[in-house]
Amino acid sequence: MKLTMNLGERSYDIIIKRDALKRLGALINIDRKALIVSDEGVPPQYIDTVLNQCKQGYAAIVQQGEQSKSIECFERLLGIMHKYNFSRNDVVIAVGGGVVGDLAGFAASAYMRGIDFINCPTTTLSQIDSSIGGKVGINLCDTKNIVGAFHQPRIVLIDPNCLSTLSERHYSAGLAEAVKAGLIADAELFNFFETDDAQENIEHILHRALLVKKHIVEQDERETGPRALLNLGHTIGHAIEVSGNYYHGEAVALGTLLMIDSEKLKQRTVDIFKKLNLPCELTYSGDEIFEKALHDKKATDSYIKIVRVAKEGEAYLKKVSKQELREIIGEGI
Amino acid sequence: MKLTMNLGERSYDIIIKRDALKRLGALINIDRKALIVSDEGVPPQYIDTVLNQCKQGYAAIVQQGEQSKSIECFERLLGIMHKYNFSRNDVVIAVGGGVVGDLAGFAASAYMRGIDFINCPTTTLSQIDSSIGGKVGINLCDTKNIVGAFHQPRIVLIDPNCLSTLSERHYSAGLAEAVKAGLIADAELFNFFETDDAQENIEHILHRALLVKKHIVEQDERETGPRALLNLGHTIGHAIEVSGNYYHGEAVALGTLLMIDSEKLKQRTVDIFKKLNLPCELTYSGDEIFEKALHDKKATDSYIKIVRVAKEGEAYLKKVSKQELREIIGEGI
Repeated sequence: MKLTMNLGERSYDIIIKRDALKRLGALINIDRKALIVSDEGVPPQYIDTVLNQCKQGYAAIVQQGEQSKSIECFERLLGIMHKYNFSRNDVVIAVGGGVVGDLAGFAASAYMRGIDFINCPTTTLSQIDSSIGGKVGINLCDTKNIVGAFHQPRIVLIDPNCLSTLSERHYSAGLAEAVKAGLIADAELFNFFETDDAQENIEHILHRALLVKKHIVEQDERETGPRALLNLGHTIGHAIEVSGNYYHGEAVALGTLLMIDSEKLKQRTVDIFKKLNLPCELTYSGDEIFEKALHDKKATDSYIKIVRVAKEGEAYLKKVSKQELREIIGEGI
Repeated sequence: MKLTMNLGERSYDIIIKRDALKRLGALINIDRKALIVSDEGVPPQYIDTVLNQCKQGYAAIVQQGEQSKSIECFERLLGIMHKYNFSRNDVVIAVGGGVVGDLAGFAASAYMRGIDFINCPTTTLSQIDSSIGGKVGINLCDTKNIVGAFHQPRIVLIDPNCLSTLSERHYSAGLAEAVKAGLIADAELFNFFETDDAQENIEHILHRALLVKKHIVEQDERETGPRALLNLGHTIGHAIEVSGNYYHGEAVALGTLLMIDSEKLKQRTVDIFKKLNLPCELTYSGDEIFEKALHDKKATDSYIKIVRVAKEGEAYLKKVSKQELREIIGEGI
């Protein structure tokens, strides 16, 4: 299956295919210097599959987890490219989850003011959401993605076989972004989660979720308008995530539940999350979450832009005051 | 005098006007949080002139010199914006020379994936060349501008009054970029340096040099083609510069002399440089300069793209082998 992200001269293909990783070299020119970025949680065989297809491949393996989206890791990747005299025509290849893709993509965006970037996502989260759209970046202190760039990949290779080695918890966490896609713009996808088994139909889910994202990104590449809809669940989700204990997708699931207008739809979403083994309840210090949420990139001085869900497949942007955001956060979910 | 850089939605005005700095707030909205970036060599009155017009201004003063184009300074600026909760609608304002503009612009490009950037160049070098065109970045080890972005400013304010506090040496160094502009694309400007006094006619020189750059950038914003012409003198110049002792403009002057096809034009250029108190001679270790030049961004594995001058006002790109570059470098100028 192939989708094309239509962004003029920055257009690229998204290949969804079992064993796609083994065919990387046939799909795009990697007969040049390649920096393969991955993390310690990614099975070495995936890294080797890519490395073996490169004539001049160098691997940089960072620690698993959000702490690798740091200035230090960014500098390390740049230093490797500099050391091996990478030119503007060389390439960075991410093999891993969202952390790896965001970090590697930002390094690719900045090295020589931008070189080619190839993304090979290996987790549900990154295959469903973060590998496409060109948002790359790192964290600063407790704030996620506060530093970064828009740098579209040249190709995205989604190999569902890679998901077989993912832990159940990581697998489920990523699915939250697909439920989010359904809530935003694809009622059928949302309903599908109620009626069918996600894991058995993962290719269908990947396809539908990516279509939602593709259409929104094509309309608004740099997030000056509707792309902000994709942040459903993220303002509060990020705040929950940086407080620890939750994976990104899990935190987004929790954050999403606070943004659904109708109690009935909220309950249906809770039922889906339960089916997917995603968290649906959390007690927290509301003041702490509020403080962290204000540091999130959607905050301005006078108001906060949040994403609400009117009904399945229909989200909308809403400006709220700080007071209103604090009320939404409450003391738990 | 006003020029407009025509780059679609990234278009902006370049104001060349005495006392422009005092009118910043009248020319663009600065009624928002503003991070003013400057260095210890910039007279405090310029920084205060800007700061006093801002309602919520924060000043970050870095050390003078190339060493401030570092990952550490980049991180420091991002940290300040994060600390004061800058939003996507806030702004970074550079007040200073090329180092300050490149560093501040890169921080603006990366904070929240890009916020507004205003450039107020205060040196000949930055007023003539580096403040327009959107190339921003920092250095890594010994390699200049190896990390960065294309991030166009929202406005550029060129106040020739600021040049009155510049040292003679800095003043002259910057003029090298205007001679370069003449050699590349404006024979009249080149001739003007032979017949007239540069300092007495600085506004004319600023205007003509900026016109050359504007036309080239408009054709090729991201340097995939003709924009590389602006790198005349830079491949070897950067290598000379990082070896110490020379300011950027001086090093570019030296590098330029090696790239002129005809002996006669080379001699005329030497005469202009002498008139401007720019260096025209240098003995070096050719191997060392060669090694550093290869690390420069124009290098690829098989060949190096250099800029040559056919006659005044006419430069061209040429691919040379490493061997040929080594021969051009020789053992001195």
